[in-house]
Amino acid sequence: MIKIKFPDQTEREFSEGINPIEIAKSLSNSLAKEIIVATVDGNLWDSTRPIYTNCEIKLHKWDDTEGKHCFWHSSAHIMAEALEYFYPGVKFGIGPTIENGFYYDIDLPDGATISDSDFAKIEKKILEIAQGKHDFARKEVSKDEAIQYFQHKGDQYKLELIDELSDGTITFYSQNSFTDLCRGPHLADTSYIKAVKLMSIAGAFWRGDEKRKQLTRVYGISFPKQKLLDEYLHMLEEAKKRDHRKLGKELELFMFSPKVGMGLPMWLPKGAMLRERLENFLKKVQKKYGYQQVITPHIGMKDLYVTSGHYEKYGKDSFQPIFTPAENEEFLLKPMNCPHHCEIYKSKPRSYKDLPLRLAEFGTVYRYEQSGELHGLTRVRGFTQDDAHLFCTPDQISEEFKKVIDIVLYIFKTLKFNDFTAQISLRDPSDKKKYIGTDENWEKAEQAIIDAASEKGLTTKVELGEAAFYGPKLDFMVKDALGRKWQLGTIQVDYNLPERFELEYVGSDDRKHRPVMIHRAPFGSMERFVAVLIEHTEGKFPLWLSPEQFVILPISEKYNEYANQVLQMLDAYDVRGFIDDRNEKIGRKIRDNEMKKIPYLLVVGEKELENKTLSVRKQAEGDLGMQTIEEFARFINKEIEKELE
Amino acid sequence: MIKIKFPDQTEREFSEGINPIEIAKSLSNSLAKEIIVATVDGNLWDSTRPIYTNCEIKLHKWDDTEGKHCFWHSSAHIMAEALEYFYPGVKFGIGPTIENGFYYDIDLPDGATISDSDFAKIEKKILEIAQGKHDFARKEVSKDEAIQYFQHKGDQYKLELIDELSDGTITFYSQNSFTDLCRGPHLADTSYIKAVKLMSIAGAFWRGDEKRKQLTRVYGISFPKQKLLDEYLHMLEEAKKRDHRKLGKELELFMFSPKVGMGLPMWLPKGAMLRERLENFLKKVQKKYGYQQVITPHIGMKDLYVTSGHYEKYGKDSFQPIFTPAENEEFLLKPMNCPHHCEIYKSKPRSYKDLPLRLAEFGTVYRYEQSGELHGLTRVRGFTQDDAHLFCTPDQISEEFKKVIDIVLYIFKTLKFNDFTAQISLRDPSDKKKYIGTDENWEKAEQAIIDAASEKGLTTKVELGEAAFYGPKLDFMVKDALGRKWQLGTIQVDYNLPERFELEYVGSDDRKHRPVMIHRAPFGSMERFVAVLIEHTEGKFPLWLSPEQFVILPISEKYNEYANQVLQMLDAYDVRGFIDDRNEKIGRKIRDNEMKKIPYLLVVGEKELENKTLSVRKQAEGDLGMQTIEEFARFINKEIEKELE
Repeated sequence: MIKIKFPDQTEREFSEGINPIEIAKSLSNSLAKEIIVATVDGNLWDSTRPIYTNCEIKLHKWDDTEGKHCFWHSSAHIMAEALEYFYPGVKFGIGPTIENGFYYDIDLPDGATISDSDFAKIEKKILEIAQGKHDFARKEVSKDEAIQYFQHKGDQYKLELIDELSDGTITFYSQNSFTDLCRGPHLADTSYIKAVKLMSIAGAFWRGDEKRKQLTRVYGISFPKQKLLDEYLHMLEEAKKRDHRKLGKELELFMFSPKVGMGLPMWLPKGAMLRERLENFLKKVQKKYGYQQVITPHIGMKDLYVTSGHYEKYGKDSFQPIFTPAENEEFLLKPMNCPHHCEIYKSKPRSYKDLPLRLAEFGTVYRYEQSGELHGLTRVRGFTQDDAHLFCTPDQISEEFKKVIDIVLYIFKTLKFNDFTAQISLRDPSDKKKYIGTDENWEKAEQAIIDAASEKGLTTKVELGEAAFYGPKLDFMVKDALGRKWQLGTIQVDYNLPERFELEYVGSDDRKHRPVMIHRAPFGSMERFVAVLIEHTEGKFPLWLSPEQFVILPISEKYNEYANQVLQMLDAYDVRGFIDDRNEKIGRKIRDNEMKKIPYLLVVGEKELENKTLSVRKQAEGDLGMQTIEEFARFINKEIEKELE
Repeated sequence: MIKIKFPDQTEREFSEGINPIEIAKSLSNSLAKEIIVATVDGNLWDSTRPIYTNCEIKLHKWDDTEGKHCFWHSSAHIMAEALEYFYPGVKFGIGPTIENGFYYDIDLPDGATISDSDFAKIEKKILEIAQGKHDFARKEVSKDEAIQYFQHKGDQYKLELIDELSDGTITFYSQNSFTDLCRGPHLADTSYIKAVKLMSIAGAFWRGDEKRKQLTRVYGISFPKQKLLDEYLHMLEEAKKRDHRKLGKELELFMFSPKVGMGLPMWLPKGAMLRERLENFLKKVQKKYGYQQVITPHIGMKDLYVTSGHYEKYGKDSFQPIFTPAENEEFLLKPMNCPHHCEIYKSKPRSYKDLPLRLAEFGTVYRYEQSGELHGLTRVRGFTQDDAHLFCTPDQISEEFKKVIDIVLYIFKTLKFNDFTAQISLRDPSDKKKYIGTDENWEKAEQAIIDAASEKGLTTKVELGEAAFYGPKLDFMVKDALGRKWQLGTIQVDYNLPERFELEYVGSDDRKHRPVMIHRAPFGSMERFVAVLIEHTEGKFPLWLSPEQFVILPISEKYNEYANQVLQMLDAYDVRGFIDDRNEKIGRKIRDNEMKKIPYLLVVGEKELENKTLSVRKQAEGDLGMQTIEEFARFINKEIEKELE
């Protein structure tokens, strides 16, 4: 008998050689059907692989990341089998899983081609294999055996991979007619896969090396239910409509110019206004919480980054240093704001009475990203952090953390991100040496974060060993309207920079102490946050944020003058908008402005002019009836008040 | 007889050989006494130098720049004579005038020293010589004669200067016992100088070359009346008190850190708040005038600056390019915002109906200045321009210029810069080839500027040949409270960038046209403007700008709670301040906060607590009596309204 421990810390005895599915069955039949893979003593483990020793086990279903990745990995093997069926002699590179689905890099036989039009038959073949309910059989093989197999098959890519493995660590997995070199784990059998879709084809150099052969990368995704595939495809359609790059262009929020440089966004008037409103919103909240704004330059001398320790890491893959006419003078584009803020902290003696000192800055920083990795506003080379550094005593960490969480929660609530979780990243308790700071401080800080998160009722996930070397942290992940996850705000404790900059305060004991620093950015960056906000809202921003809250639509030129009067009156009430005085039919004007997602459409014609009223339409919802100008202004301002409550 | 024309275009006849003083005497005896120097046909001319040909003449008094410089130049000669008296064998380098006064670089005889303590006797000697009423005699000499004279005197510095002159252009000026190599012109005689002050001593390399000998530079200043010297010295004392570097530190507005880099200001919380208020103030005005804010990155690719033409000029004396891991990828720190705004203009097709397009940005730019030239916030390496670019049709220049002038005038009025002039810089009509753009456009633009300035009632000075090669401009010079002049706002027409960026709009004729660009910055830069504002107001900012509008001074700890209530209530009225709850006597608290230039001091004690009132004191003015909290809040907000009217 062996003892098996479950995540809830209960322990049960099983006979040696039992496998995860059987363990699940002992709990419930229906659970057993859902088990895709397991974690045994920290290692991923096939659901049908026998267990011979005492261990801890976690069982994974489709809903777990581990479950999905095992599922997709097995699907990649089946796709490979199907490809081999249609392209005999095809050779295989690697076939890993990705965030959504999997791919396989293949080297097609001479003269063979593959295109979108081949997808249907391959999908059909995959499902046919899946329905065959073939086991995924695991086999440990010697290096010689492995080499022999792929020499015989004539697959030089697999041979190259085997060459790098040590004897005794090599496993093969086989299903139906296909065998692959693979670390596993895999599904019990192929029948779990009920729906599959090949997504696209791309070129990919073998081992990412542009001097080697270009292979064909075939992307796919699979699901345990057809319904899940349908939902996924629908989500993709929706995501395409909401793509912030597309909407950003349509709504004239931002632009890129190859001459200015890739990954360097330029905020157009409407985007700049949106961003300014977000910044003012946060400034106002932060002021309430005792933050003080500062402004620092976008470059700093080498010496600053030698002190901060960043200079050592400033390698060949970064923006290179800026030299000047003076000898030995070298500046760096600012990759973060903290060193500058440390210099401000140091600009005068600080006492415990001055703490916490909360320095905030909308600081634009520059980090070099490979051009291939740039993506709209989410992956850029220049971005503005809604940064702040809280300098406090070790005892103040808990209170400060709670206040930052309050700010983040207020932002999420106001901007309608209702679905979010927090990840708490702590030290690896088995390797304390790699962290800076005393044990006592770490324990205090980690406990402070855990307590703060729990007190604020956050749904959290604790990750051991995920802390930075300089301190523990808490990151917020939001789910957008399409269920996609985005990492947004972050709160990090830092024992390192105060040490490196030799920051001090005089305590109530009249002695010098070292403050702790907390880095925090609730939005993350203005660029990333606006991108997520666009995709989350499909560009239908909350009213208070909308660059334009209304458009006035005169039925004909005759009413342009009245439209102008309305515009001026609404401006006096601080409600913003514009007039669409194009010489177009009113129906066309309504349609065009609905497209532009203007929240309110104000039609003015004879009746409205006579009664000094407006015919109010709400975007996507239709007619709200007649209102006087004052009524409309009051209505809008009340709506905004509700949003910001 | 010769004909002499005066600035008012009248012409009179005089006998040949008449000199400017005699001409002045023919107008009025008292004028003649005030004439220091003249301009004859564009050349400076001694007041006693005979005139033999028809010419145009301008007579200069002390109040003219030309007058002052002649006066100081003559004073330098007399100082040289006095120095030679005390230090026989002293050798002379150059002795020019500067913005305020003059200096002479001297090489003291071996073993001799000069220090502040010698100033009094030298000044006395200068005045003694001055009172001697010695003529300044001009003499044209041959190069040989000149060389002979200074060889005999043993002054190698003058010999080196003579070496570079051509024969036939050399003149000597002599007064009393001293003769100098000099282009002139000079005073009629030494008696004009009634007051003199030696200011300081510094080291200066001969010809500014650090490999050559270090000479002693003696600075001085002189005046035609003792009262003017007294006023000047008083002004210097005042200027020292108002030095923005000193006040900036005391008021905690900004700081520099050698680690971040010289000339790179960091705005501390109070300074950042002040700056933000100024920016919001301007944004609000600009919004009214149809400007749209944009935000662009602080770097741009080389290609952008090749197009703009700046790359050619980007030499070894600039911040050097930023290279990246990608081959041939090269960025520059942004030295100006215009190229980025041109790219925004180009981001979509523009029609004449879209013009003027007014893109504004508080854009931070970086320009390398020699470390020796850096000075507080007025000469920095990174600064934020209150920049905007107006893209318009040639016909719109006039209207746009007038609107910009309106904005500048509103700013000057609101910030109490009541004394200012405008310089209009036009083409050199005799060298039209060096300017880009058509004759027709230049004439139109120049006339538009002249008309706009005149229509707005500006006091202007027109300078021919001072226009940039790309267009004419108008610069504002303000006089601060101490009478010092500062160049602030600028408005410039630009025909060049629209050409280089191939900007276009479709005209009402359905054809493509090139827009004109107007660059303008009413503040110049936030840094420079704040520096001038600090010196102008001695840190006593208008109430609406003050980082802190009040301080609450509890008479003892007992009243801290009430002080807190007051703070919260005033905050709700949008009036900002803080509590000085130090355990100090009330008198001390009042003194300290007066020093910090907090506009209103609110004392709270027993009586105030009982009646829910405040004892209000105005900075530097004293007691204003009791007010309720609401009364005070209303009073402050009314004061601000008046300021911003």
